[in-house]
Amino acid sequence: MIDQLVEKIKRTGAPIVVGLDPMLGYVPDHLKKQAFDEYGETFKGAAEAVWQFNKEIIDNIYDLIPAVKPQIAMYEQFGIEGLVVFKRTVDYCKEKGLIVIGDIKRGDIGSTSEAYAVGHLGKTQVGSAKLSGFDEDFVTVNPYFGTDGVLPFVKVCKEENKGIFILVKTSNPSSGEFQDRLIDGRPLYEIVGEKVALWGGECMGNAYSNVGAVVGATYPEQGKALRKLMPKTFILVPGYGAQGGKGADLVHFFNKDGLGAIVNSSRGIIAAYKQEQYSKFGAENFAQASREAVLAMKKDISEALEGAL
Amino acid sequence: MIDQLVEKIKRTGAPIVVGLDPMLGYVPDHLKKQAFDEYGETFKGAAEAVWQFNKEIIDNIYDLIPAVKPQIAMYEQFGIEGLVVFKRTVDYCKEKGLIVIGDIKRGDIGSTSEAYAVGHLGKTQVGSAKLSGFDEDFVTVNPYFGTDGVLPFVKVCKEENKGIFILVKTSNPSSGEFQDRLIDGRPLYEIVGEKVALWGGECMGNAYSNVGAVVGATYPEQGKALRKLMPKTFILVPGYGAQGGKGADLVHFFNKDGLGAIVNSSRGIIAAYKQEQYSKFGAENFAQASREAVLAMKKDISEALEGAL
Repeated sequence: MIDQLVEKIKRTGAPIVVGLDPMLGYVPDHLKKQAFDEYGETFKGAAEAVWQFNKEIIDNIYDLIPAVKPQIAMYEQFGIEGLVVFKRTVDYCKEKGLIVIGDIKRGDIGSTSEAYAVGHLGKTQVGSAKLSGFDEDFVTVNPYFGTDGVLPFVKVCKEENKGIFILVKTSNPSSGEFQDRLIDGRPLYEIVGEKVALWGGECMGNAYSNVGAVVGATYPEQGKALRKLMPKTFILVPGYGAQGGKGADLVHFFNKDGLGAIVNSSRGIIAAYKQEQYSKFGAENFAQASREAVLAMKKDISEALEGAL
Repeated sequence: MIDQLVEKIKRTGAPIVVGLDPMLGYVPDHLKKQAFDEYGETFKGAAEAVWQFNKEIIDNIYDLIPAVKPQIAMYEQFGIEGLVVFKRTVDYCKEKGLIVIGDIKRGDIGSTSEAYAVGHLGKTQVGSAKLSGFDEDFVTVNPYFGTDGVLPFVKVCKEENKGIFILVKTSNPSSGEFQDRLIDGRPLYEIVGEKVALWGGECMGNAYSNVGAVVGATYPEQGKALRKLMPKTFILVPGYGAQGGKGADLVHFFNKDGLGAIVNSSRGIIAAYKQEQYSKFGAENFAQASREAVLAMKKDISEALEGAL
């Protein structure tokens, strides 16, 4: 799956993933009104509004980017109806030729991680049938349990040609609280990063592993160190845009081949119409604002990379 | 919510939680046949089999125990249909007077953790309505993101009188890989444990905090150290039974008041009929085997506590 991602990044020239994290506050009023008129102020109404919002954005950006990253929490908060729209979004994006990174951040003891792995990436055995559940292409994984919480995901990646991104250094302000603590003089995120490289060695694509890492754009120095430590690990980089990361911060997340990283922006793209610079589009044309924001992000990152590599 | 848990533990005399982690392999053939005959070998069929299995077990044990802990991964692996049965199980257990600990192990950056917190413990705003999603009483939380990934859960606990259990030292074999690494001479799980006690100070019940910890029965020495470090933190102890923990290993997880811990057993209870000692019940009477296994676990833990306290 990592090879397909690399190929799509090359084809689009955009090492960019758009986070489909549709908080209701991002959804324009006209879509909410339409959905609530039909289904009431219910989870079904909220999910319908989110679905219409997602669909219009996807239709306007799918040709520009290789991948999307729906954040399952934003759907799970609307209960079953929300998860139905999560699945519909995954399926629709795949129909549009996009690679789907399910941002689920699961992780547990081995037998439980196995259930998450088959449910999200693989196939679940039901009697004599093997059935696909959410069927994302990649998912994000939490490493706190260590090797036996991660290997069930790696196993499914091998069997099904899927991929994962394991949390190494997260983008949030307090990520250092545990992740930066020194162990034998080295921060925990490096210890985790070394394990990610090790696990990834078992599940290689051509140049990169199907086992990637998550490293926040908000920590460029740490990104630089981790890039060296994990040369064949693809890095999913959240935190660009709304969380504060800029194109220039990102260059060290990439390898000399101009690959090795994919940068996520969520609200900076999907709620672009709310920003001053895209206000001319108005709420009615929110998805065109998203398209403009993708183009601007692509330019920002391309220029930064051209300057640096 | 922790006060209600303590009260129910006192009333039942059982510091026990039963893990409702229904792998299909645990479900007796007659229930699977019935469900597959009706719905085929589909996720709906699997979910129906799991629901009938859960319901019969709950009906046979609800009077003996204070709480249950459904593991969401075991439902999520069956897609939307599985999650419908997760929710049905949560609701049914609450109707039966049981406290429900949703074993979801979520955790993310702040805004995302907030979505999980409202979706599982609180209420999600939809237009002018506030709607309950999965509505468990407690959930488990992963601490890797640090304070700003955890506080959204604490906030909802305060607003809604709910609770959480944060992973500190997990029960699995490789949990030491990161959790035992020494930071300034102390293992990471102690650093996390200290934070749990700190976060919990903001959300106290009478004697214990609504912010608890997860510490595996399989690590009794670490449990002893953490018990001292977090005197007002209730400890959820997985790993009893099938994972290898025994009653005698558990005494140091408890305080001198005989409280402060609740021990989980999953397959040891729900798949008891598959064990030699309960084989007389047969697959038809699996739920009575579960009842016997709960009584045996209660006796094992009571005797260990009586000997020690």
